[in-house]
Amino acid sequence: MSSQDLVAAAKPRGIIDRRGEDVALEEYVVSTVGAVYERWGFERLETGAFEFSDALGKHLPDQDRPNAGVFSLQDDDERWLSLRYDLTAPLARFAAENWTSLAKPYRRWQTGPVWRNEKPGPGRFRQFTQCDADTVGVAQAAGDAEIVAMAAEALTAIGLPDGGFGLRLSSRRILNGVMESIGLSGGDIDRAGMTVARAVDKLDRLGVDGVEQLLGKGRKDESGDFTPGAGLDTGAIAKILEFVQAERGGREETLARLAELVGDSAEGRAGVEELSAIHDILSALGVGDDIARFDPSIVRGLEYYTGAVFEAELTLPAADGGAPVSLGSIGGGGRYDDLVARFTGERVPATGFSVGVSRLTAALRELGRDSGIETSGPVVVLALDRDQMADYFAVAQMLRAEGVAAEVYLGASGMRAQMKYADRRNAPVAVIIGEDERARGSVTLKDLKLGAKVAAEITDHEQWRKDNPAQFETGRGEMVEAVKKILTR
Amino acid sequence: MSSQDLVAAAKPRGIIDRRGEDVALEEYVVSTVGAVYERWGFERLETGAFEFSDALGKHLPDQDRPNAGVFSLQDDDERWLSLRYDLTAPLARFAAENWTSLAKPYRRWQTGPVWRNEKPGPGRFRQFTQCDADTVGVAQAAGDAEIVAMAAEALTAIGLPDGGFGLRLSSRRILNGVMESIGLSGGDIDRAGMTVARAVDKLDRLGVDGVEQLLGKGRKDESGDFTPGAGLDTGAIAKILEFVQAERGGREETLARLAELVGDSAEGRAGVEELSAIHDILSALGVGDDIARFDPSIVRGLEYYTGAVFEAELTLPAADGGAPVSLGSIGGGGRYDDLVARFTGERVPATGFSVGVSRLTAALRELGRDSGIETSGPVVVLALDRDQMADYFAVAQMLRAEGVAAEVYLGASGMRAQMKYADRRNAPVAVIIGEDERARGSVTLKDLKLGAKVAAEITDHEQWRKDNPAQFETGRGEMVEAVKKILTR
Repeated sequence: MSSQDLVAAAKPRGIIDRRGEDVALEEYVVSTVGAVYERWGFERLETGAFEFSDALGKHLPDQDRPNAGVFSLQDDDERWLSLRYDLTAPLARFAAENWTSLAKPYRRWQTGPVWRNEKPGPGRFRQFTQCDADTVGVAQAAGDAEIVAMAAEALTAIGLPDGGFGLRLSSRRILNGVMESIGLSGGDIDRAGMTVARAVDKLDRLGVDGVEQLLGKGRKDESGDFTPGAGLDTGAIAKILEFVQAERGGREETLARLAELVGDSAEGRAGVEELSAIHDILSALGVGDDIARFDPSIVRGLEYYTGAVFEAELTLPAADGGAPVSLGSIGGGGRYDDLVARFTGERVPATGFSVGVSRLTAALRELGRDSGIETSGPVVVLALDRDQMADYFAVAQMLRAEGVAAEVYLGASGMRAQMKYADRRNAPVAVIIGEDERARGSVTLKDLKLGAKVAAEITDHEQWRKDNPAQFETGRGEMVEAVKKILTR
Repeated sequence: MSSQDLVAAAKPRGIIDRRGEDVALEEYVVSTVGAVYERWGFERLETGAFEFSDALGKHLPDQDRPNAGVFSLQDDDERWLSLRYDLTAPLARFAAENWTSLAKPYRRWQTGPVWRNEKPGPGRFRQFTQCDADTVGVAQAAGDAEIVAMAAEALTAIGLPDGGFGLRLSSRRILNGVMESIGLSGGDIDRAGMTVARAVDKLDRLGVDGVEQLLGKGRKDESGDFTPGAGLDTGAIAKILEFVQAERGGREETLARLAELVGDSAEGRAGVEELSAIHDILSALGVGDDIARFDPSIVRGLEYYTGAVFEAELTLPAADGGAPVSLGSIGGGGRYDDLVARFTGERVPATGFSVGVSRLTAALRELGRDSGIETSGPVVVLALDRDQMADYFAVAQMLRAEGVAAEVYLGASGMRAQMKYADRRNAPVAVIIGEDERARGSVTLKDLKLGAKVAAEITDHEQWRKDNPAQFETGRGEMVEAVKKILTR
């Protein structure tokens, strides 16, 4: 084959391959979170990777980014299909399609990859995994509270310590109430609302000054790009900035402050009542201020949220007892009462939470919290004589029959390369059967972990060769037990 | 919202939603098969859902079908991407991309959905799940034998009984040898080879007559569609038909017959030697004629196979002791020594097997072998007084803390509808706390499974109401134990 016929062995940008432990860590997170969801009565669902493009709609968080988008394709009917960009839009389609036959309320959880046709970057991929729980058909705030308490339990279950994560909650209705109280109403809120919400959403990243600019005339970033602002006047901006910084000590104090800020706005008062009901249920479920705070700066970028909004973040407790330091978002959600109505025309209350599995596993890895995952490779049975392959396989099978992972070396190299292969496979033991062992009905076992340790410590090479504790001969009948003993060392 | 603004709640053809038990059954199959693969030393891999189209190549099994194809899309670089149609093509890309750094031989397993842009039909979907194991870098037949023995172990592990499945093996090299022996050589085999292979592949479906037509001038099917044939003469056709029916009693007898048929063809003899080596290893691993047969009619449609080919099928043992009756394919694989060379220019031997998870779970369901999967829903705590929600949540939490799945009813309906909901959720127990129970510090438990049974058997309604064994009151402190007792009934 000439080299110009060759195809490049490359994968698209923002797509990664994951091996062994990386996959195991993600499966651990998904199965642990999923087990919590199941214990709370959520039923598993799986939908296809793509939906009709119009069924998915366009609810991406970063609609204002120029390259934001979905991956779309056409099938042989020439209908447009899109890869799902989250697990909420497919749920809305499923719930609407099966609404009459579902037992309601419908609690479901779902996990799987989602795809975004966006510019990839460090830690930002075009395929990543989410693990969602949603309740469809619950109007009361207890439905939101349940989701938040369950998310806290799930994040604790995967091994995040107290103080290592936090949930921040607010309600879109309170923000709407504040907007009402500064003189915006109905249509104005629809028009200006998303711009204001997006500005508030950037508090963590841009600080108070940046938000102030985005609420006013607009903001030019370091690269010179200009983002137009919401065009509010100085008084309105001050009120909104007061609102986003309204968090006080605990949930109750913050609620009291928010009640002042929304004033007479009916929408704002409904939002405060909503958070108050969430607070009661959280308290009954033992979820304290340390785990779930009310933070009015949380708005979440997605257009479809209509009430409570939640954000989960990794945190470092602040040294001075102040607010914890955020290490980044690992999930979020909220109430979206209009999403099913796109299909049915009838408002169906819904609320949910999404764990960002890919971000969470990356964080666990950085925190060194992935140590529970199996890292040992299989026992490697060396293949020293090609005419003895059947026997080597029989030996490996004896180990597997007792639950010990084992393989026969199947390459074409000699003993030294085979030992190197065993090391690279992270094998705990190598099984060696040469002519001598065969004559004696025995096997030689090499404990590779101990071997590495001993080799690092030896001073006397002669002595080591004579009685190397990491290598010994044993009868075939005793082999499996001897290997198991090494594995439990 | 006016009805003409509504979006249809529908999903694309050939895409299915799966709920609860269906997902659990698939996960059971994948985790059981995967555990076997791991025990044989195969390392987990996950690649992205799509690859560059040219990296995937076009190796679909049914290249001769007009609508066969892949789903393709463009990213914002306007490069063509395709959803993977199997897990082998992405492995070839991965192995080529990482060839220098991989410990070789490289054994990997992978599971996940694959997509085909084909006409869907009964049991034929456009997204389905596979679970593959492949060995890259092994030239010897022991690598094929290992894959076959492991596949047999995996199918046994998921609960298929002896005689309930079978593996049929052959080698492309034997077919090539037979073609050589009828006078076709080199270039002819390349040209006519795939047509002959596809014809032989259809023996199960079309019978000897149909294959005879496809080897000769061609065949018109019931709908009048004409498939052109390989154009062989009568003598050649007779020889090939003799070959495809060459299976005799056990593997050894079939090998002897095949050795006669390939005659002096070097390629054919190499194929017979290959199968002979596979036979030796299978025997050493305890895989008998009843589980793995040699059947020369197995060729597999994929163009990329170069040596051994395998097919796994569900079977019913024949009543008269003859060949078992096939209930359809549940997996297959073979040796493909040229796939990595597309990228690297160097031949890399490789062999593998793919379990058709979606087909297998459908078959398990039909066989009624999915009974091990959890079917019970959560305990449902009724919500009779809206101002007691926090208390209901605390009760549900007591159950969850002891590992019992539980949920609070969060809809807006009354007691009768709540009980109906509990039934539809397949709840084992309903927890009822009304005013009376609250006053007494107790709960009423309703055993819904026993209740259904008792209700079906009762003759005396008055008596049943008086001492219904399926409903009783217990103290709050005793609730969790009482629920657990019901669950273990």
